[in-house]
Order: sequence, then C-alpha cells, then structure tokens
Amino acid sequence: MIKAAVVGASGYIGGELVRLLAMHPEVEITAITSRRYAGKKVHKVHPNLRGLNLRFTNDYNFDADVIFLAVPHGESMKIIDEFLGSAKIIDLSADFRVSLDLYKRYYGEHVKPELIDEFVYGLPEIHREEIKKAELIANPGCNATAVILALYPFKGDVSEAIVDLKVSSSAGGRRENVASIHPERSHVVRVYKAFHHRHEAEVIQETNVKAQFTVHSVDLVRGLLATIYFKMETSEKDLYKMFFRYLKEPFIRIVKEKGGIQRLPDPKYVIGSNFVDIGFAYDEENQRVILFSALDNLIKGGAGQAVQNMNIAFGLDETLGLSYLPVYPI
Amino acid sequence: MIKAAVVGASGYIGGELVRLLAMHPEVEITAITSRRYAGKKVHKVHPNLRGLNLRFTNDYNFDADVIFLAVPHGESMKIIDEFLGSAKIIDLSADFRVSLDLYKRYYGEHVKPELIDEFVYGLPEIHREEIKKAELIANPGCNATAVILALYPFKGDVSEAIVDLKVSSSAGGRRENVASIHPERSHVVRVYKAFHHRHEAEVIQETNVKAQFTVHSVDLVRGLLATIYFKMETSEKDLYKMFFRYLKEPFIRIVKEKGGIQRLPDPKYVIGSNFVDIGFAYDEENQRVILFSALDNLIKGGAGQAVQNMNIAFGLDETLGLSYLPVYPI
Amino acid sequence: MIKAAVVGASGYIGGELVRLLAMHPEVEITAITSRRYAGKKVHKVHPNLRGLNLRFTNDYNFDADVIFLAVPHGESMKIIDEFLGSAKIIDLSADFRVSLDLYKRYYGEHVKPELIDEFVYGLPEIHREEIKKAELIANPGCNATAVILALYPFKGDVSEAIVDLKVSSSAGGRRENVASIHPERSHVVRVYKAFHHRHEAEVIQETNVKAQFTVHSVDLVRGLLATIYFKMETSEKDLYKMFFRYLKEPFIRIVKEKGGIQRLPDPKYVIGSNFVDIGFAYDEENQRVILFSALDNLIKGGAGQAVQNMNIAFGLDETLGLSYLPVYPI
Amino acid sequence: MIKAAVVGASGYIGGELVRLLAMHPEVEITAITSRRYAGKKVHKVHPNLRGLNLRFTNDYNFDADVIFLAVPHGESMKIIDEFLGSAKIIDLSADFRVSLDLYKRYYGEHVKPELIDEFVYGLPEIHREEIKKAELIANPGCNATAVILALYPFKGDVSEAIVDLKVSSSAGGRRENVASIHPERSHVVRVYKAFHHRHEAEVIQETNVKAQFTVHSVDLVRGLLATIYFKMETSEKDLYKMFFRYLKEPFIRIVKEKGGIQRLPDPKYVIGSNFVDIGFAYDEENQRVILFSALDNLIKGGAGQAVQNMNIAFGLDETLGLSYLPVYPI
Repeated sequence: MIKAAVVGASGYIGGELVRLLAMHPEVEITAITSRRYAGKKVHKVHPNLRGLNLRFTNDYNFDADVIFLAVPHGESMKIIDEFLGSAKIIDLSADFRVSLDLYKRYYGEHVKPELIDEFVYGLPEIHREEIKKAELIANPGCNATAVILALYPFKGDVSEAIVDLKVSSSAGGRRENVASIHPERSHVVRVYKAFHHRHEAEVIQETNVKAQFTVHSVDLVRGLLATIYFKMETSEKDLYKMFFRYLKEPFIRIVKEKGGIQRLPDPKYVIGSNFVDIGFAYDEENQRVILFSALDNLIKGGAGQAVQNMNIAFGLDETLGLSYLPVYPI
Repeated sequence: MIKAAVVGASGYIGGELVRLLAMHPEVEITAITSRRYAGKKVHKVHPNLRGLNLRFTNDYNFDADVIFLAVPHGESMKIIDEFLGSAKIIDLSADFRVSLDLYKRYYGEHVKPELIDEFVYGLPEIHREEIKKAELIANPGCNATAVILALYPFKGDVSEAIVDLKVSSSAGGRRENVASIHPERSHVVRVYKAFHHRHEAEVIQETNVKAQFTVHSVDLVRGLLATIYFKMETSEKDLYKMFFRYLKEPFIRIVKEKGGIQRLPDPKYVIGSNFVDIGFAYDEENQRVILFSALDNLIKGGAGQAVQNMNIAFGLDETLGLSYLPVYPI
Repeated sequence: MIKAAVVGASGYIGGELVRLLAMHPEVEITAITSRRYAGKKVHKVHPNLRGLNLRFTNDYNFDADVIFLAVPHGESMKIIDEFLGSAKIIDLSADFRVSLDLYKRYYGEHVKPELIDEFVYGLPEIHREEIKKAELIANPGCNATAVILALYPFKGDVSEAIVDLKVSSSAGGRRENVASIHPERSHVVRVYKAFHHRHEAEVIQETNVKAQFTVHSVDLVRGLLATIYFKMETSEKDLYKMFFRYLKEPFIRIVKEKGGIQRLPDPKYVIGSNFVDIGFAYDEENQRVILFSALDNLIKGGAGQAVQNMNIAFGLDETLGLSYLPVYPI
Repeated sequence: MIKAAVVGASGYIGGELVRLLAMHPEVEITAITSRRYAGKKVHKVHPNLRGLNLRFTNDYNFDADVIFLAVPHGESMKIIDEFLGSAKIIDLSADFRVSLDLYKRYYGEHVKPELIDEFVYGLPEIHREEIKKAELIANPGCNATAVILALYPFKGDVSEAIVDLKVSSSAGGRRENVASIHPERSHVVRVYKAFHHRHEAEVIQETNVKAQFTVHSVDLVRGLLATIYFKMETSEKDLYKMFFRYLKEPFIRIVKEKGGIQRLPDPKYVIGSNFVDIGFAYDEENQRVILFSALDNLIKGGAGQAVQNMNIAFGLDETLGLSYLPVYPI
C-alpha cells in the first residue's frame, strides 16, 4: 500500500483527492491537513465523505510515500521545503508548472525558482516516460489540460488559436466571496477574464501555440468545455487521423460520429470520471478548424490526473482507482 | 410626486425597491443609502440598474415623504430615531412586526419596545384600513406573507398546521458566506431549520394558528412555495368558497381548475410580479386540507408589498407601479 | 462471473444499471435490450458510456444468470413469461412490489396476480434473508425506499405520517413531454400530486404507517428528499437510539451532529452513491417528530439497490461494485 | 388604442408578446390564435398570465391594426396571404428577414419570394426611418440582433469574425423533444451547431461581416451572450468611441467601467428588459478586438423588439410599454 498525505484537504481539489484516494485499492491515507479545520472530521467540510474515519490535522509530521499539495497558488512554493526528500510530491498548484520566464510573465515573482526545473509537467499523455521516474510532479491546470490535449496534435502546424472557455463554479474554489454566492453566480454567462489568462502559459509551453483564452463562467458546478478556433487548410478526414495517436489512451475519448443524434463533447457526459472528450469540426468554407474539449475540472482537471500521475510514478496500472464511468444524467 | 428614500439599498430587497420605485409613475427617488458602497453608482451593486443616475450615499439628511428601511433585522430599531417624524416609514426588517411578547420569544431582546404598538402590520389584504392612516408600517416577511394569506380564511377554525417551506437563495440576502457560494448552494434540498422558525411569530399573531415551519432551501434564486397541512372535515367545494373573500384582491390569484393540465401554485408562475398564487386540495380519505401558496419573495414578499403599502398610505391606486405580469418562462 | 441482461436499457434506470454492471468486478453484461434503439451503440442513448462496446438488441434469446427488468410500470407483468425460470429476475417496475389488494387500490388491474406472492420485496435492510434465497425480486421505488427506511424503526408505534417529498426530473424518466422540457421544468417547485400517491402503497405494506405523500418536483436532475412529520412523545436521545439498528448497515448513514455546521440529510451529499442518509429532529413544544431521508433516486432508489439485491441473491459481498463515495460538489 | 392580434400565441415568443401587449398602455389585444389550444384560456399554456381574460382562437377573422406572426419558421410565408392589406404585419419568423439569395443559401426554397423586398428589416437602431413607414416588418432573430448591434459600428472595417454564442433553452421553443427534457438539457454546454448557422445570414446582410457562428446551449432558460473575436489594430479608447453612436439609443447600454468590480455584459443583467448590453476589450498583444453582447432572447431578441417596431410604425414613443428595468437577481 502507498501511504498518501493530502496537504490542503479542505478545498474542492483536496476533497476530491480524499474521495479518490479513499477508494483506491493500493492507497492508505495517512494524513489530511487543514489549518482552519484542524481537529474536525472530514465530513464537516466534505459532507459526501460522512463515514470516512479521517480528521484534519495541522501537523506536517506524517508518514507518507506521496504527498499531494492542494494548497492555493503561491502557497506551494512557500511550504515545499518541509516536504522535499521525504516523499514523492505532486503539486496541484500553478507554482511549478511553467518555466521561470513564463511564470514571471503570467504570474509574477517566484520564491523558489531553482526548483522549477526539477519538476516534471504531469500530463501523462505527453510526459508519461518522465513521470515514471519523477520525484516532483507539477499537476496541470484544468483549463490547460483540456486545451493542451486538444491542440497537441497540431504542435508545429498552428501558431495561434482563439480559446473560448466555459467553466464551472467549483473551479473558483471553496472561498467566500459576494460574487460567488448563489443569487449572484446562478444563471450567469459571466466573462471572468476577457484575455491574457494565466492558464495560457501552460499551453504555450506544451504546444507552442499562442492560445488566446477568454473565460466565461457558466451555471455549472463541475465541468468545462473549451472551444478552440484556428485557421488551417485540411479536411475532416485528416483531422480525424491527427487524433489517432490518442486511440490507446485510457482517458481520452475521441468523439466522432455520423448519422442520427450528432453529439460533440459536453462536460455533462464526463462528470465523475477521469475522461477528457475531444471532438472537432472542419468549416471548409472558411478553412477553419474548431476543436471541442470537455472534462471534469476536479478529476481529469485536478485530483484524478494527480492520482493518474501517482499510479505512473509508483509503477501501478495507470487506471487503478480511476476507472469510473461518468454519472449521467446529472 | 412622492419623494422616497431607501435606507440600506445595497441588499436584494433594497435593490428591488430601487427598481420598482424608479419605474413608479408617482415617485421620485431622493436618496439611496449604503455605508459600504457610499459614493458608488447604483449599478456597481445592482448591475440590472445600469443607466439609472443614482449613487449610494451615507448621508441621512435627505428630503423624503416616505423612507423605506431595508436594513438587516435588528438594525432598524437602532437607527429609527433618526427618521421618526420626518416622513412615513416602511420598515422591511422584522423589528416591528410582532408584539413584544412574540418578539422576545422568537427573536430576543428589543431595544425600542415602546414603538412596537405604533406600527401597523403591513399586510394590505388584512389591514388595509389601518394602513391608510399609518405613519409607521412594518412590512411582513416573505414566508409569513405566503402562509398568512393562505391560512387567514381558516382563522378560528384551525389551531395548528404543518408548514413545509421551499425557499430561494435571494431570501438569504447579499452576504458572503461559504455555505452560500454557488458550488455549495446549487442543487440542494437543504433543511435550513427543522423547526421553531422565527417567521412563525407573524403567523400566530395574524391567524391564531400555531404554524410549525420547516424551511428547505432549494435551487431557486427567487420565489417560494409554502405547503400547509392540517386536519379538517370539509370538502373541496367548501374550501373554494372560503377563498371567495379574495376574489377582488388585485394581487391574489386563486388557482383552481379542472380538466386538461392541472396546475397548482408554483413560484415559477409569479416571478417578477406582486402576485401571490394560492391553491388547495382536499384529501377526503384522511380528512386533510393541503394549501399551496407561492410568491416572489423580493416582490410580494418584500419590496412590492412595501410599495403596495406606500400606495395605500398615500392614497394612490393600490396597484400603481405594481401591475407587472410575471415573466415566464424564466 | 455472473451473466447479466438488462431489459429496457434505454431509460435512466436502465442506463444506470448498465453503468454499474459494467464496473462490477463479478459481472459480465450479456445483453441490453431496447425496441426503439435496437442495433445502436449504447452511447447513442447514454453518452456517458462512450467507449463501452455494447449495442442494444431486441432479441430476448440471451444467456443470463440474472435479468433486470427496467421497463415501464405495467410492462413487466406483460413480458415476464418470456424470462421465468431461465434466470433470477429483478424487476424494477412497480408491478410486483405490493399485495394484490394494495395494487388494485393504488394502480388498478393486474394481469399476473398469481405471481405477486412469488416475489420478494427487495429492500435488503428489511428483507435480506429472503432475498438470499429469492428467484424473483421486486425492487422498491425510489420514494418508497427513502420513506420506508426512515419510518421502519417506528413500525407499530406510528399510524400515520405526512410525507412531503422533493423529487428530481430523472425520476420522471426519459420521455418527451412538453411539461418536462427545460424551459418548463427548470426553477419549479411543482406539485406533482397533492395526495394519494402510488408510492404510499409500499410504505403501508412495509411499515403499517398510513403515509400521506405530497410530491413536489424541484430543480434537480438526481436525488430526492423526504420530509416526514408525525406526532409522538419522545426525545431526541430516544429517537437517536431507534436508529441504532442501522449502525451496521453499509448503505445507511445516520446524520446526527452537534456544534459548528449543523447538517441534515440533503440529496446533494449522496449523489453518485448507494447511500441513504437519514436524520431527525424532535420538536418538543409540539411533540412532533420530523424525519429527513435523502438518496440518489437512480442508485439506492433504483439501479444500485437492484445490484445490491443481485449481490445478496448470488452470495456475493453485498457492497461489491457499489462502494462509491458520493461525488461532491455537483 | 391600437388593436393587436397575435397569430401563433402558444409559443414562447407568442406568450411574451401577449404579456407585453397586455401591459401596453396604447394596445388592446383583439385576438390570440393557436390551432392546438383553440378555446382554451391563455393561462392553460402561459400560467403566468392567469387572470388575463383571453382565450385562444383558430378563427382568423379578427379586427386588428397590427398583426404579429409568431409562428414557426416556414409557416409565415404559407399563411401571410390571409392577412396582407388588412393591417400592418410584424413577422417574427425568419421568412422575410434576408434577401432571396441569402435565404436560399441558408434556408432553402422560398414560397413567397416576391414579398421579400416589401419587408423592412425591423432593427430600429439601424432602420428606424424605414420602419416608420413600413407596412411589413421582419423582426430580427435573437442571435442576429445581439451580433449585428455589436458589429455594426465596424461595418466596412471588418470582413470576418468568430462568433461564439451561449444560448438558452427558451430559444428552442415550446416543443416536446427528448433532447430538450430537463434531465438531458440541464447542466450542458452543448454544441448545437459547430458552424454554418442560419442566423449568420442576417449579420452578413446588415454588416457585411462574414460572421462565423458556433452556438452553445448553456443552462439558462432566458438570455444569450455573443462573444465576438476579430483582428484589428486599434485601442480601447478608439473602440469606446465607435460605440458613441449608440449613446442616445434607449435600449442599448454600453458597458464600460474602470476600477472596483469590473463587469462585462452578462445575460443575467438584462432579463425581463428590452436592453441589449454591449461591451468590449482590446487585446493589444494580439491585436484582437473582443466584443460581448447580451440580451433577453424573448424580449429584445423577439417580442420586445416587435413591440418597439410597432411603436415606431404607429408613431408612438418608441419606449412605450417597454421601459422595464431588468429583474435581478434571477
């Protein structure tokens, strides 16, 4: 059994990690930490987990083979020294995902720049071999995961793309904030950021595409859809072939069908699972490619991908504890 | 033109007052106050009101014929001295709705007990004549309005009733709070209070029925439904007759129909209007009456009723500035 | 491996059965039937199941150890002869749940009355021993499951109860209907049936309590909450003790806590799981008990309970393929 | 008083017309037609309108000064002969909005081509003078209204634009359809059409911009947001100036603000009103303009704009019966 600790377990990503790890056949949870809720049972914060015999602690002296850092952006780099060397670390913040240059440009100052190059970018479909040997893994962002996996087959062929994102409220975290209360946040199509979104940095690094994000909050608790537009002379058939590389990927489903009900990726179809669904259309008249990429932001966009990385880094079957079919309708 | 001021205009009831008063043909808004947002334009808080040339102030030296107090419960009694005598006051808090005895039992200590008897309980369908002459009006609560209007015809015949309420998030006000953020508050059927709810006090006072409230928060931004159960030997026909008293009420719709699509009151059918829809069913086998009462909590359950009270108190047509048909579907 | 067939697999309960059975470690799905979609891949109807290599068939000549009938009410009794004797049958319709007397009173004529007594009522927490030996199992309704499990400890002590139900749209099935389209069905608190609801029959049979259902459709896709009211002299402590009988039940969670965030059962906390959460409150002033019972209508209220019954009837660990923690937030 | 008839009054646009006309101070409704509901009271279909003394008829021999055709696309051209010459006609279908060439390309065959040129395109902000004299008015589509008003200032300067639309369920009409039922349609981000959307035709005609629509259904009952992307060298200041032309428009609000809470157009802020909110951002790094345009699809995108056209065509104040502030929060 792998001993796992979750640091910062009171947020949504942290709660989802506890949920997935508690069901994982090869994992034993040895600690879940929270400053604010130290001493409380886990279900006081995550009511779905009632029945799990776990309490939050603020003591970092735990015994772990793998430590998941699920703390806010900017926190990981401040606390990581406490854990270095004691266990494999999977960081779910944005602190170690991109090069120092990109970090400075999109985020600002970094207090631990010497560590950045030690981290492997934990997107298994692209960096599986490096993850196998990694001690430090930077888990990708949810928006970035959706966009990178869709654009990666076009690396080298496409230089820029418009990315129109539709995201859910759980991506904003478990924080009080007037703009997030139910009367304000329900039934919106709210432009969270018109352009220059931080998650572009990961896309640039991994695909060389200058992705231009515009992020819209919609009335979802979970899930996201990225709609990606770029110019290219191709055909629907050739597009299809470009995605063949993913045919053996356990968590990518290429959505392609003819006749009857035509479906394209929709976050509704992946909720509760580690799948990312990718689809495409070719607008011949305007020589435009349109890609669609949907995932559950807390699973493939967060905790699920972290568990996938753990499986790989510990030599387990990559799908262990992650083979959940999406819950539908929901 | 009636000069109107809204004290505490940054909450949802306050915003709805501003909206209704701005459209009222006989009203001129002379001040909207907010400590937190003083100096800001109204649309910074209420984005629907973009285009209205109003700013929040924290100066109480305004010129007004009527002052609406839309401050939190417990605040009105602290600040009311500033306004007494200068204008008619319509208080939307719970501070002056019930007798001192009931107040102490359901709320606690009162700092202005001598004023309680000076207030008229502003439920026009019951107290219209007193409202005409009132200087001080206590505007009823949203839950109480729905339940009192449904139960009033049974006053004297019924001694207790079970009241199962389904309420919306706007009733909780515009306050940051982790339990209220969208991921936590969406898709709930959350028991807000299993029993001994404060709004029972108004029902007891107005109907002599010991109403026993259980309040459930559901996934609505606006509206509420009260389902009311009590034992009684009667018939559907006799029940119908008991509601004849409301036939001339401009804002009560009795929902009764046979054949085809059978509808009972639903908050969805009254949103955006000052209507309360009341329906009923008789369970002959168990000799039970079931009443259903639906309204928009911010209008008939708040700002709309306050404007209705203003119209009456100033001798205007009671429906002036309130004849909006509900927006549907929504 | 148990060979399982799902007859009527295109509805929501059918789809959920396929989902759960496909993930079950001891089950092999040998057939999924649908007249309307025969020949189509499963994901044409259930888009979450993309990737499963299954097609609908309308051929009943399949090889199965257990047959799940997930057809509409009234259909099971018409087609059951085709399957009798060939396999264990778990019927998810209402056709064989209650005695002929109750059936006639609540539903009408029965075309297979001689079979009713052959069926075991498949509520494991009450009939586990009979289910172990059963060939024919009638899977309980979703509303009935919630209410029976809450009321069962009071069997003999309580004669009638008011049951106010809040239910979701998936309970209405996958059928086109103007009243069910999104613009009409969103944001409702719609009284589906004021009284005399069919699901009362199961409650009467199992608990001897004359439960009086009033069913409200709320804006949920999954989940239900039953709020149950009855008069009784007791105490909160004694109420708690009455639920001790459930302490070893793997799928019942008794919700009881003091201090901090007070939570009562909410469907939001059980979605995606086979749990039923039961809570209670005692209103001493009015000598009233209030029970709260929440579950996922497609799992513990349908497909999950059917798999639980299968596990028991085939001598497997009762929780096999069902130990999913609820997905939250959702 | 203007005598008004609504042909096809049982749909959502028809219901909204009845609601607005019933509140209009200069209108008397003389007929509302529906084949399916002839003889029924209006509230059997539109439950918000309970209390209005109107019944559906299937008799076209009514007395009217203005006739609103709110029938499905393709129907208007089949029935229009019945009404020609008897009254001003405002057609809310797509039948007479675009030139024959565009119609053939985007829709197909037209059975009344000789009438197309007789119609004025009823977008008051662009065609006010022609509408004043018009007998036949083609009311714009909801998506087209949002996009044209945003793009019109760029006419001549921009040749193509990517248009990512987020639309609500009421735009799909009041029709039964499995894909539209609440369990299927809730919580989606469903690509309704990847490209080549019919509403592009109106945009091309009015702005000469080759708008490339991708339409996403989101979990809204009302409202839509268009996000529009195109390349252009400009500045935020110059963009602002381009919208000055709209400063005197009563129903356009330009959303531009600095500091504090930054808001951009959101359908949530216009529901229940005839406003269209337009905002913009300039991405200097990529020399891209991003426009945002939000409206209530049943009001400014349908019935409200039709009433605005009626007001203009009958010489009334353009805002009469339309000065409703948006309902918020909702």
